[in-house]
Amino acid sequence: MKILFSPIGNTDPWSNYRDGAMLHIVRQYRPDKIVLFFTESIWNGNENMPGRKEFNWNKIISSVSPDSKVEIKIDKVENEHDFDSYKELFHNYILEIMNEEPNAEVLLNVTSGTPQMESTLCLEYVTYPNHKECIQVATPEPEKNIKRIFANPNDQEEALQKVNENEMNSKIRSKSIDIISFREAMIRSQIIGLIYNYDYEAALTLISEQKSFRNAKNLRKKLLLMTTQVKTHEIFPEINASYNNKALKKVLFHYLILKMRYDRQDVAETLIRVKSIAEFIIRDYIEVHYPNIIIEENGKPYLNTNDNMPFLMKYQKRLKNEYKSYVPQRILSLPTFIDILKVLSPKSPLLKELLAINDVNGLRNSVAHHLDTLKLDRNKNHTKIRLSVESIKNMLNIAYPEIDEKDFNYFEEKNKELIGLL
Amino acid sequence: MKILFSPIGNTDPWSNYRDGAMLHIVRQYRPDKIVLFFTESIWNGNENMPGRKEFNWNKIISSVSPDSKVEIKIDKVENEHDFDSYKELFHNYILEIMNEEPNAEVLLNVTSGTPQMESTLCLEYVTYPNHKECIQVATPEPEKNIKRIFANPNDQEEALQKVNENEMNSKIRSKSIDIISFREAMIRSQIIGLIYNYDYEAALTLISEQKSFRNAKNLRKKLLLMTTQVKTHEIFPEINASYNNKALKKVLFHYLILKMRYDRQDVAETLIRVKSIAEFIIRDYIEVHYPNIIIEENGKPYLNTNDNMPFLMKYQKRLKNEYKSYVPQRILSLPTFIDILKVLSPKSPLLKELLAINDVNGLRNSVAHHLDTLKLDRNKNHTKIRLSVESIKNMLNIAYPEIDEKDFNYFEEKNKELIGLL
Repeated sequence: MKILFSPIGNTDPWSNYRDGAMLHIVRQYRPDKIVLFFTESIWNGNENMPGRKEFNWNKIISSVSPDSKVEIKIDKVENEHDFDSYKELFHNYILEIMNEEPNAEVLLNVTSGTPQMESTLCLEYVTYPNHKECIQVATPEPEKNIKRIFANPNDQEEALQKVNENEMNSKIRSKSIDIISFREAMIRSQIIGLIYNYDYEAALTLISEQKSFRNAKNLRKKLLLMTTQVKTHEIFPEINASYNNKALKKVLFHYLILKMRYDRQDVAETLIRVKSIAEFIIRDYIEVHYPNIIIEENGKPYLNTNDNMPFLMKYQKRLKNEYKSYVPQRILSLPTFIDILKVLSPKSPLLKELLAINDVNGLRNSVAHHLDTLKLDRNKNHTKIRLSVESIKNMLNIAYPEIDEKDFNYFEEKNKELIGLL
Repeated sequence: MKILFSPIGNTDPWSNYRDGAMLHIVRQYRPDKIVLFFTESIWNGNENMPGRKEFNWNKIISSVSPDSKVEIKIDKVENEHDFDSYKELFHNYILEIMNEEPNAEVLLNVTSGTPQMESTLCLEYVTYPNHKECIQVATPEPEKNIKRIFANPNDQEEALQKVNENEMNSKIRSKSIDIISFREAMIRSQIIGLIYNYDYEAALTLISEQKSFRNAKNLRKKLLLMTTQVKTHEIFPEINASYNNKALKKVLFHYLILKMRYDRQDVAETLIRVKSIAEFIIRDYIEVHYPNIIIEENGKPYLNTNDNMPFLMKYQKRLKNEYKSYVPQRILSLPTFIDILKVLSPKSPLLKELLAINDVNGLRNSVAHHLDTLKLDRNKNHTKIRLSVESIKNMLNIAYPEIDEKDFNYFEEKNKELIGLL
């Protein structure tokens, strides 16, 4: 179903014995319904210009499109040349049309009426483009419309016949205009802001809502992939392809996510994750460099108490010196891994980095397990969290020196790529 | 610094011995620089209308604003009544102006030129509103501009004098138009989409970028608060005020965050958190109902092995029956809390709910500690995660029956409130 909304001006229904814009659109599109908008002064006319009320609009329209239903709206408009006069008025008329016929395609005539009406309809379209089209009609002889012969209600029947004959032998002058790009430009700048904030999901939401958008398909695909990878911890394909070491890939991916969360100031989540990542690195480091120390049971790490006497002796001695108890059945976690590494390699540079992680461990447990609020303004908590994130990066460089520094900028590179497509 | 960009039409520089729109704006605003845009055909004129090149624009402008610098741009425009003709052209001229003078306020004359030029400038403004203003000029006698006396280059000096005299005794007709509301309307609909997706930070980003926005201050404040509360796990003030039980408040807040993350399909984060929240509830439940069972040391829960013989006997017996080892020095965690509750209250409805949590615990450990990818399509993982979130809600209702059901809709209520302000 097609419905035309058309303001009416003095060049409607015709001038120079050629269609005015409204009539021309009706001739081409044959809308099921036509809503004509008149200001009171155009409707009533003045000494120089006959009122449009003197034209038989139904008859004129049915001569070019017999099945179109015509509705006439007349409003008193105080300041006809003011933008503010039409904003609400047009919006409400169009809303009314769409509420009555939710599936209709609404055609907006942006050539009839005053320039203010035209601009208002363009803006209305760009703001609410769904199920709408802006139709522009070119004047037949662009440079000679200075001395125009306006329509005269007194000879309207004869004139209409002449108009219809003239148009029958002429080319179509109406076309749909492409101004949706203004909307795109606006949304593009918003999406750039969201991407810089690593908010890929919001960028995806915005693009998905658009009727038309440059590279929409490709962008949606990339943003959806990115969002899914982040949400399911799926290692980014570029990272996955660059390395063989599986542990390296996992932990590099998790560092990237951690750093991104930290940069977004998602501090509690950062704090909760930092320990697990550090734990993973130190455990992998021990397993790779000292293969006999840790065993796994039911997916959990324990001390290997078989065939491991020399280490166990040193380890127990160390614990005793520090007044810690030796519980071989305990599941190993960050503090025990640190104790183990201190025995195996007391000068390992990892130990220095682990200090920053240990420094937030109490805070981390209070937030992760006691469900406490993270008070950033206390005990230098904010600084401690920042340092712990930096330490993870340093640990990565120590444990996996083969990591290419550029891979730490994964999100920045990805952002450039996405913005390049916008 | 003020710079005026103005297309020029046939009613410029004047008509009916009154200012055309451009001249009137110059008279009122005295811009430092004026960029005049002519199409070639307006510049050269035709048999009916003298070319605008025959007017001395510098002289005319300096008679009303002696310090304004004038720049003239002339472009061949194939289809003068087409929107597409001006989109790029005007955008680039305005960009050029802003690049030359980044701090300038650019005035756009939206009354001179063709309606297509006018609409294009309106759209350009709404799309890139920063440092810009749209100026509209009313015609002196709105209803009598049909038989217009156009400016004639042959008597321009005398006419200019007459125009200046006429304007000197008349009211100002130019005004800045308020069409930024179209931009607001567009952004409003995007923000609604983001709020429905609980993406408060993205909503905040979008509002903060706007030059003008209804209720901006209040919305920014509320969105910033919400974002900070979520990021630092600060219990929502309404929840905080509604209950006395501290544990209840914490865990209700964490359930709300968990459910929100799950609804956003942030599945890995949901999975990682679900266990800690369940653990918190069961531990609090045991501590409240069986105060002598658990003790805390260095912020961690252990079995109380003093003065607790009757329970310990039953507990050890149960572990033995299940071939589990009894390690009193182990830090208590979800599986041990479950074993403890089975001894204390074998028919507790909490135990049924905990099955769903236990069901994802292996998956959870692989994602949280082994940094594995969460494979949603395997082993009904997606369903299991959903059920675990539902179980947390059920556990809350069992452990804290005083929770008001409406508080589970906290985010939905908040969203209504925020959308109401838009």
